[in-house]
Amino acid sequence: MPGNGSNLVIAGRTFRSRLILGTGKFASPELMRDALEASGAEMVTVALRRADLSGRHDPFANILEFIDPDRYLILPNTSGAMNAEEAVRLARLAAAAGLPRWVKLEIHPDPRYLLPDPIETLRAAEILVREGFVVLPYINADPVLAKRLQEIGTATVMPLGAPIGSNRGLQTRDQIRIIIEQATVPVVVDAGLGAPSHAAEAMEMGADAVLVNTAIAVAPDPCGMARAFKLAVEAGRMAYEIGLAPAQWEASPTSPLTAFLG
Amino acid sequence: MPGNGSNLVIAGRTFRSRLILGTGKFASPELMRDALEASGAEMVTVALRRADLSGRHDPFANILEFIDPDRYLILPNTSGAMNAEEAVRLARLAAAAGLPRWVKLEIHPDPRYLLPDPIETLRAAEILVREGFVVLPYINADPVLAKRLQEIGTATVMPLGAPIGSNRGLQTRDQIRIIIEQATVPVVVDAGLGAPSHAAEAMEMGADAVLVNTAIAVAPDPCGMARAFKLAVEAGRMAYEIGLAPAQWEASPTSPLTAFLG
Amino acid sequence: MPGNGSNLVIAGRTFRSRLILGTGKFASPELMRDALEASGAEMVTVALRRADLSGRHDPFANILEFIDPDRYLILPNTSGAMNAEEAVRLARLAAAAGLPRWVKLEIHPDPRYLLPDPIETLRAAEILVREGFVVLPYINADPVLAKRLQEIGTATVMPLGAPIGSNRGLQTRDQIRIIIEQATVPVVVDAGLGAPSHAAEAMEMGADAVLVNTAIAVAPDPCGMARAFKLAVEAGRMAYEIGLAPAQWEASPTSPLTAFLG
Amino acid sequence: MPGNGSNLVIAGRTFRSRLILGTGKFASPELMRDALEASGAEMVTVALRRADLSGRHDPFANILEFIDPDRYLILPNTSGAMNAEEAVRLARLAAAAGLPRWVKLEIHPDPRYLLPDPIETLRAAEILVREGFVVLPYINADPVLAKRLQEIGTATVMPLGAPIGSNRGLQTRDQIRIIIEQATVPVVVDAGLGAPSHAAEAMEMGADAVLVNTAIAVAPDPCGMARAFKLAVEAGRMAYEIGLAPAQWEASPTSPLTAFLG
Repeated sequence: MPGNGSNLVIAGRTFRSRLILGTGKFASPELMRDALEASGAEMVTVALRRADLSGRHDPFANILEFIDPDRYLILPNTSGAMNAEEAVRLARLAAAAGLPRWVKLEIHPDPRYLLPDPIETLRAAEILVREGFVVLPYINADPVLAKRLQEIGTATVMPLGAPIGSNRGLQTRDQIRIIIEQATVPVVVDAGLGAPSHAAEAMEMGADAVLVNTAIAVAPDPCGMARAFKLAVEAGRMAYEIGLAPAQWEASPTSPLTAFLG
Repeated sequence: MPGNGSNLVIAGRTFRSRLILGTGKFASPELMRDALEASGAEMVTVALRRADLSGRHDPFANILEFIDPDRYLILPNTSGAMNAEEAVRLARLAAAAGLPRWVKLEIHPDPRYLLPDPIETLRAAEILVREGFVVLPYINADPVLAKRLQEIGTATVMPLGAPIGSNRGLQTRDQIRIIIEQATVPVVVDAGLGAPSHAAEAMEMGADAVLVNTAIAVAPDPCGMARAFKLAVEAGRMAYEIGLAPAQWEASPTSPLTAFLG
Repeated sequence: MPGNGSNLVIAGRTFRSRLILGTGKFASPELMRDALEASGAEMVTVALRRADLSGRHDPFANILEFIDPDRYLILPNTSGAMNAEEAVRLARLAAAAGLPRWVKLEIHPDPRYLLPDPIETLRAAEILVREGFVVLPYINADPVLAKRLQEIGTATVMPLGAPIGSNRGLQTRDQIRIIIEQATVPVVVDAGLGAPSHAAEAMEMGADAVLVNTAIAVAPDPCGMARAFKLAVEAGRMAYEIGLAPAQWEASPTSPLTAFLG
Repeated sequence: MPGNGSNLVIAGRTFRSRLILGTGKFASPELMRDALEASGAEMVTVALRRADLSGRHDPFANILEFIDPDRYLILPNTSGAMNAEEAVRLARLAAAAGLPRWVKLEIHPDPRYLLPDPIETLRAAEILVREGFVVLPYINADPVLAKRLQEIGTATVMPLGAPIGSNRGLQTRDQIRIIIEQATVPVVVDAGLGAPSHAAEAMEMGADAVLVNTAIAVAPDPCGMARAFKLAVEAGRMAYEIGLAPAQWEASPTSPLTAFLG
């Protein structure tokens, strides 16, 4: 895509957009659909409980009707799973229901900060990779865990910048820097990105993509905010590909200081 | 401008772009011209010594030939001036040579960090405002100085984020926040913005515009970097106008946690 | 002083302690006196309106009775002055009343953030230095202003870390670093230091002293907090004198990694 | 201990000092011994390969001769172990050699950043707890992992502030804050603390202790630096126990602003 640098490739599939959207918290499914359109995203994650797999009638249960599977890769997520068994069960159910065999693996036993469990996540990832799923695990910004996951065959690693919905930005930037340096699969920064500048910073550091949900979904104008994140992700990626100069202590004059108008 | 929020107005003149470019450090005037085009900027600052006012023959002396005055407001700057007298003299010379009666007032006696002198800057601003110049003073992020300058009639205040050319971003964010809160004229963050995310952050905080030079001029691809900054400025402004949620400590789930797939 | 590194010398007077105390906001003058004792400070600043120079009867008007002038250098401050004239008048009044001819010069026209006015401060400093006062000016973290003040003969410069009473720590660290690098007089970091770690950081950077008031005065146990700041200041100074290793990106093993127990 | 707040209790053993020392990287064992004395620490960690358990003759092999076991709790560590098996073997070997049945569990497969492996660490901890060891695991700042470890019975959790030897301070402060909030065992911040202010900040946040090695061992004066860290830890703990006021945006005057000297 012109002006947007090279494409993102995950598990052999090519994406021109490096912004992935979550579908939670929108005021209505129509608003979600419009924000998705405005974001330019090509991948969108859906909590499996949201999809009408269960036969229950939740107002969002029909969310899948608002996402065109020809335009967007639907990435089922296991949000709400508290251990590997629950996560694996959800992933299988989604596949059985005809959703793509991709899964955003989220296992967070802690209801307060929704932080992911490293042990259960690795365990579930092993099972799901073996069963042929394309696994995108949501993890703490733990470089060793990230390495272990990519070694067993996950398609990405998705370290958090800060707790889900906290809008605190890249609080884990030092660890994410190491994860990026050591990665052999795409690194997607997920959670905590509350402003376009946070998304741009993640991209400038070399993250391959970012996932944003809360900041867009709860904004007074979700479509406008989706577009703002789209631009910021593009800006950050362009800067990364071109190469940013490092920060330095001394000033560097923008014009020669020696000669002065006589 | 669609998607870019409301316009910027300085001294009665309207700008659709909130990115101002500096012209120093480019490898050639042609490259400067192309980056300016790519940036979407409508105002561009030129060191007076760069312009061929002096009759000397510096390779950049003809830089004005590369800037179309019908498309861009040329903002002469007094870079190199070490006190109020030198700055005032440069501004008058520029006006006499037919340049717009606008001036970016820069007085930095310190060659190492190029930090501005608050006393000389206020003194020169008083003189130039009285002479009818539109004065845009470059200052330390000092809220009381900013207030005094706007009280004597400067058209903007231009606090620095970090020393010129340091790429360190918004190191002075706490002070800039206060300046923005108290401003009655546009606040332009100038100096130190080394990455698109820095520019986006300044806009998200409510800055009215940013001035960027080094990060674009010395990039391996100045035009690409100019475009990245353009997008980041737009993204940050859009987010500011829509309204960003504050950072918070606890996580906020993106999907209901109570019900779990039965 | 053993364990506390070299002494602090201001205007020819030697201090073993590098912690300066403010006397505002204490619940009672007795508590102030005890905290002063616990802090180990040898210099203490008193708002002139607090001292019973005016003949008014404010509960704190007799604060000077609680400070032994043989043990502590009383540093009158001009807090409340909104311009140079008011500050100069207060300083002269204090001297006339027999207080030391030292003055902490504070001029803050802004009641919300209490930020200092650079222009008025320089103007008052010029007058007071000429009149033989030992002048310690409270300033924004502005390196050029700091230079100008030391050039006209102030005994120190006192840049703020963050607004008075904000407890935000060294938000201006980048600018303070430059001030320290260029200083020819002692640099005292004043305002915003809300925790012992903030004071330690200032000392580690090479500040010569710190002034603390709010964080001690409003603590549930001001004497305990005074002692905590005392230890932190000593710790930071010791580390500075010994020399701290710079931060680095890579880990550096604390034990050889090659050989492993056979 | 007077002035040092309440004591630290780990696995039923009481410590007056909240500073734990590492023994790597000192220029000589004598210097290590003297710094240990100066630090006031009562617990000291020793890499098992350092102790002469192997019969090899490494210059540091006799390091245990320099640590008086009546004054200091010797905490064997498994540094160098790359998986659970190696770590368990080292711990058993230390116990068999008569060292205390305590172990600082360190498993870091990555030689560059020495970051700990969450999976292997939990696995080894389970085995060692079952065998009656007092287990102090070194971990990434991962709140869920910390919870799981305390649930299986580790005596502490030891999250890292930044990579070992990096001197970068509390880069993981957001995550450590959550770990402290949720902890039922003492939280010891380990690794990355390069300056006394870093140690003070960890204590102010509510960490129960800190472990320092590199910053003291490689200082030009290790004994002086040990004393500086001792003071900073005491200062930070005192401030935590007394209670620090939160940071706030607006200034808070230290003296009444309404009345001004008539």
